[in-house]
Amino acid sequence: MSLLTVGTVAFDDIETPLGKADRIVGGAAMYISITASYFVNPINLVSVIGDDFPKEELDYMASKGINLEGLQVKEGEKSFFWAGRYHDDLNSRDTLDTQLNVLADFDPVLPEAYKNSDFVMLGNLTPAVQMRVLEQLPEKPRFVAMDTMNFWMDTAMEGLLEVLKKVDCLVINDEEARQLTGEHSLVKAAEKILQMGPKYLVIKKGEHGALLFYEDKIFFAPALPLAEVFDPTGAGDTFAGGFIGYLAQSGDLSFENMKRAVIFGSAMASFCVEKFGNERLKGLSSDEINQRVGRFVELVNFDAQL
Amino acid sequence: MSLLTVGTVAFDDIETPLGKADRIVGGAAMYISITASYFVNPINLVSVIGDDFPKEELDYMASKGINLEGLQVKEGEKSFFWAGRYHDDLNSRDTLDTQLNVLADFDPVLPEAYKNSDFVMLGNLTPAVQMRVLEQLPEKPRFVAMDTMNFWMDTAMEGLLEVLKKVDCLVINDEEARQLTGEHSLVKAAEKILQMGPKYLVIKKGEHGALLFYEDKIFFAPALPLAEVFDPTGAGDTFAGGFIGYLAQSGDLSFENMKRAVIFGSAMASFCVEKFGNERLKGLSSDEINQRVGRFVELVNFDAQL
Repeated sequence: MSLLTVGTVAFDDIETPLGKADRIVGGAAMYISITASYFVNPINLVSVIGDDFPKEELDYMASKGINLEGLQVKEGEKSFFWAGRYHDDLNSRDTLDTQLNVLADFDPVLPEAYKNSDFVMLGNLTPAVQMRVLEQLPEKPRFVAMDTMNFWMDTAMEGLLEVLKKVDCLVINDEEARQLTGEHSLVKAAEKILQMGPKYLVIKKGEHGALLFYEDKIFFAPALPLAEVFDPTGAGDTFAGGFIGYLAQSGDLSFENMKRAVIFGSAMASFCVEKFGNERLKGLSSDEINQRVGRFVELVNFDAQL
Repeated sequence: MSLLTVGTVAFDDIETPLGKADRIVGGAAMYISITASYFVNPINLVSVIGDDFPKEELDYMASKGINLEGLQVKEGEKSFFWAGRYHDDLNSRDTLDTQLNVLADFDPVLPEAYKNSDFVMLGNLTPAVQMRVLEQLPEKPRFVAMDTMNFWMDTAMEGLLEVLKKVDCLVINDEEARQLTGEHSLVKAAEKILQMGPKYLVIKKGEHGALLFYEDKIFFAPALPLAEVFDPTGAGDTFAGGFIGYLAQSGDLSFENMKRAVIFGSAMASFCVEKFGNERLKGLSSDEINQRVGRFVELVNFDAQL
């Protein structure tokens, strides 16, 4: 199966209680595509960068089976840049700087080869750009998932609701689910969201795990309890990449397989936070990934003896 | 097996976003003993009340196999009273009033019949009172668990650490674990606590579930996602009652059985929050309890197909 993904490819400055990293490679689509590349090929990347983006990072992505034909490179312009500082508990952060640069007038153009992609992951971006990507697909793909954020709920809610109608799955965090619905209870929020378009909903709760909702079913995946979280940046996108990558690999959209996809997404996210940026996501082996998933099995496995 | 428990039996005034209840029956030992009574008999209760406590509540407890011989009734005095108001998210609350009353000079006295109790649950109380209970036991029971709170860490840390040395299991919440150890990471906090005396540690995370630590093993039990939480009061004590009650019923201290005990504790807590005070904990059937545990199985069960 093929996977199409759109989102940012960017630079980040990051400060966490354990350290500081300047101008490292970031962006939702970078995290999604590198993570998904452990599960599925090809990955059709749609994004935009300036001419300042490091060639070796692009070479690495290409070597992972990531198709860069849809990655626009704007000569003489700068890539999207974000700077943030995490608080001591790593659950909250302050944005110190945002420079849209090439993203300001990004118009995604899908190469012909992308148009029959089976799976689609719309990374967090302006809803209008997400919609432009869907509009260029001649047929409805087998499965479309999307991410979004509070900022678009404040500034582009109408467009966001239009995209929501066209996707199979929404992947957002708990605060976003609450803002989108005005419900504090995630169960009530899920009921409302499942009436907005998506059949499936994943609510990410960071260190508290993730919930998968489908019809009247709920599945819960824990986050791996870690002694040290080095840098949470990209963990949500890494989760999304593992989730959609696992689904696209198998092509199996049963609820049982969705559960596994949530676990694989959680396992990939548990790697992401162990080092700065995408460092820990490079060069993983499938043994390492399976062993990590095995730790999730041990973590929640019990025999109720009912 | 027999279970000994010590803690408060009290009145609570409670305000939550969904309602208000005045002068309802509360207290750690009340919640622990009623919950544990679904699993094990007899339950040897040690506590103190004034002559204002409703006879029908005592009759109900007796009817559940709770031995009230160690419940001191102080004529002409008032029972312990607490009033609190929950915030909208139900995760935090303000204490509006605390009246120690009979608790101010509580000296627990163990009846002879209590002294060979196999399992002990020390509910949240002054560490000195918890210690006085342990000192009256001629032999070390098979399993002793304790709860405590931040307040004792601020005011009686030395005594608290002494009790900790004498127990097999500590059951506390995440904030308490952090305060006790100065570690934000619960994994690091657990490492430190397991060197303070207890072999087992349960960290309750409210709506985010519970973690069981033993040697280098970790087990995670989710909380049941609920559309409506009516009143969180007593949920932690109810968890403890289900946990220790399940263990005492089986007498099995294997890690596999500890996991089940954590799940049964979580299931009982999920009932507790559905109504005010202990209302939902009365008159449960074993079918209802097993069905609730079945929902936990469904919630986390997956086949990794590794």
